[in-house]
Amino acid sequence: MTTLVFGHKSPDTDSTGSPIIWAWYLQSQGIDAAPRLLGEPNTEAAFVLERWNLDKPEIIEDVAADTPVVIVDTNNPAELPGSINDADIRAIIDHHKLVGGLETKGPIDITVRPLACTATIMVDLMGDAAADMPEGIKGAALSCILSDTLEFRSPTTTDHDRALAEKLAGDLGVSIPDYATEMFAAKSDVSAFSDAELLRMDSKEYPVGDTKFRVSVLETTSPGTVLARKDSLMESMKTVAAEDGVDQVLLFVIDILNEEATLLVPNELVKSVAKASFGADAAGDTVVLPGVMSRKKQIIPNLAV
Amino acid sequence: MTTLVFGHKSPDTDSTGSPIIWAWYLQSQGIDAAPRLLGEPNTEAAFVLERWNLDKPEIIEDVAADTPVVIVDTNNPAELPGSINDADIRAIIDHHKLVGGLETKGPIDITVRPLACTATIMVDLMGDAAADMPEGIKGAALSCILSDTLEFRSPTTTDHDRALAEKLAGDLGVSIPDYATEMFAAKSDVSAFSDAELLRMDSKEYPVGDTKFRVSVLETTSPGTVLARKDSLMESMKTVAAEDGVDQVLLFVIDILNEEATLLVPNELVKSVAKASFGADAAGDTVVLPGVMSRKKQIIPNLAV
Repeated sequence: MTTLVFGHKSPDTDSTGSPIIWAWYLQSQGIDAAPRLLGEPNTEAAFVLERWNLDKPEIIEDVAADTPVVIVDTNNPAELPGSINDADIRAIIDHHKLVGGLETKGPIDITVRPLACTATIMVDLMGDAAADMPEGIKGAALSCILSDTLEFRSPTTTDHDRALAEKLAGDLGVSIPDYATEMFAAKSDVSAFSDAELLRMDSKEYPVGDTKFRVSVLETTSPGTVLARKDSLMESMKTVAAEDGVDQVLLFVIDILNEEATLLVPNELVKSVAKASFGADAAGDTVVLPGVMSRKKQIIPNLAV
Repeated sequence: MTTLVFGHKSPDTDSTGSPIIWAWYLQSQGIDAAPRLLGEPNTEAAFVLERWNLDKPEIIEDVAADTPVVIVDTNNPAELPGSINDADIRAIIDHHKLVGGLETKGPIDITVRPLACTATIMVDLMGDAAADMPEGIKGAALSCILSDTLEFRSPTTTDHDRALAEKLAGDLGVSIPDYATEMFAAKSDVSAFSDAELLRMDSKEYPVGDTKFRVSVLETTSPGTVLARKDSLMESMKTVAAEDGVDQVLLFVIDILNEEATLLVPNELVKSVAKASFGADAAGDTVVLPGVMSRKKQIIPNLAV
């Protein structure tokens, strides 16, 4: 049976590229494997697939019981098919905190490392076989690292991620600043998405005490494009919160180039979140948070009401 | 703050030796670390400490909140202090199936591999630093592998575990058959233990449908010594089951040298377990299961009522 390799729902570049990278590696080791996606890739990930001539993996909603699977870029059952624990989980490769909830039928390979990017861990795990990566796989790995580190600006960046990206770019003859600019332009083109789609595109649910938040980020080189839509985005938050069973949507518009976030402040609850979490006084319906770029390292750990 | 390294409750040789090995490695990397035990080591582990002149680690019952810890040889909260999720879990190194339940505050190092022994994974993780292991640490690693593989007889044994053990034995100038015989003799000396202690010494709770079992194994080169006590062991099962809130204790006496298990059959329930799990017809109050050596690979996956 073919081993299916996939990342989380609402796939970004790392959750699109890493399954392709690892399926290639498994195939190179004689294991029948194929990448899958748990949804449409975002605009940056779609650009990366086209740039490196990679086939878009088949999108699946669920996995049949006992299907051999490798889970990458998450260990959170909420971000995976509902029946995941009935699959035959063969390996997990991830860089997020352990949330508990996944179970395996026997001892398997699990590798979690506090690196910026799943693809970096994968190249480490390949050992000498990494030297055989074809251009498309190297391009995918470079793209995953630049995406997850926001071109080394995010505080999640490690020296190890950076060194690998620079080596890959050298092998490929790619200028990192030029290529990252193209990737971020693709990510910043959000014209095709509805307000609700934007709010759910890169979003994780997170409770603070009894209050359930949907913590959404939009990483962009063109924050003005998003902020021009702020009134309708704030209106849409009510519907999205009600539909998704949370109390409040928080939208952080991450300005990649200026290294700051703008939080939309639709009401008193979010105003108090800005104060309690970041010491920021919101005068109007937005507040700028200088230096805030990472949900994992800077937003979630500080979130308070 | 000192990072505490520990394995599971009721420490066997791997859960005694692996914390010592990893604390040594962390110290060699400039990290303040110390091994701990979550209970008295078993007789084999105590022999190993003495043989290699290793200090017996301090026994702890609990860890204070925010203590930095590394968990080895388990990922099961039931085998760890009750407050484990309040500790600052820095890393997990294990070779058991993922049971879910552990949570971490951020992304950490997690390495689980389907190898026979935690110590084997640790030596891999050390990379070049493994060459600096002093005699006592090499002795501990060799002992962990011989213990967990029952001198390569257990079906959990991999070529990788065996190759490492042979290399370590060569470095140390130790004959594996002679040393394993000494270790197993130490493990087989159960004269100091009460029946209840024997039933709980190497035991994991496991439910089958609505029936909760305590699945106990006793690995020994002298099965006759244990089986001579079978009447009082079967009597004690009732008390242990009642005290521990399970329906039935199963005791498998593993004959290391003859590579077989003897299951005690105190009642009709266990008789039906022998039939449903292993196709074995128990005529009297014991039944021999040829080739059965591993709870992880052979007993738990087949357990049925």
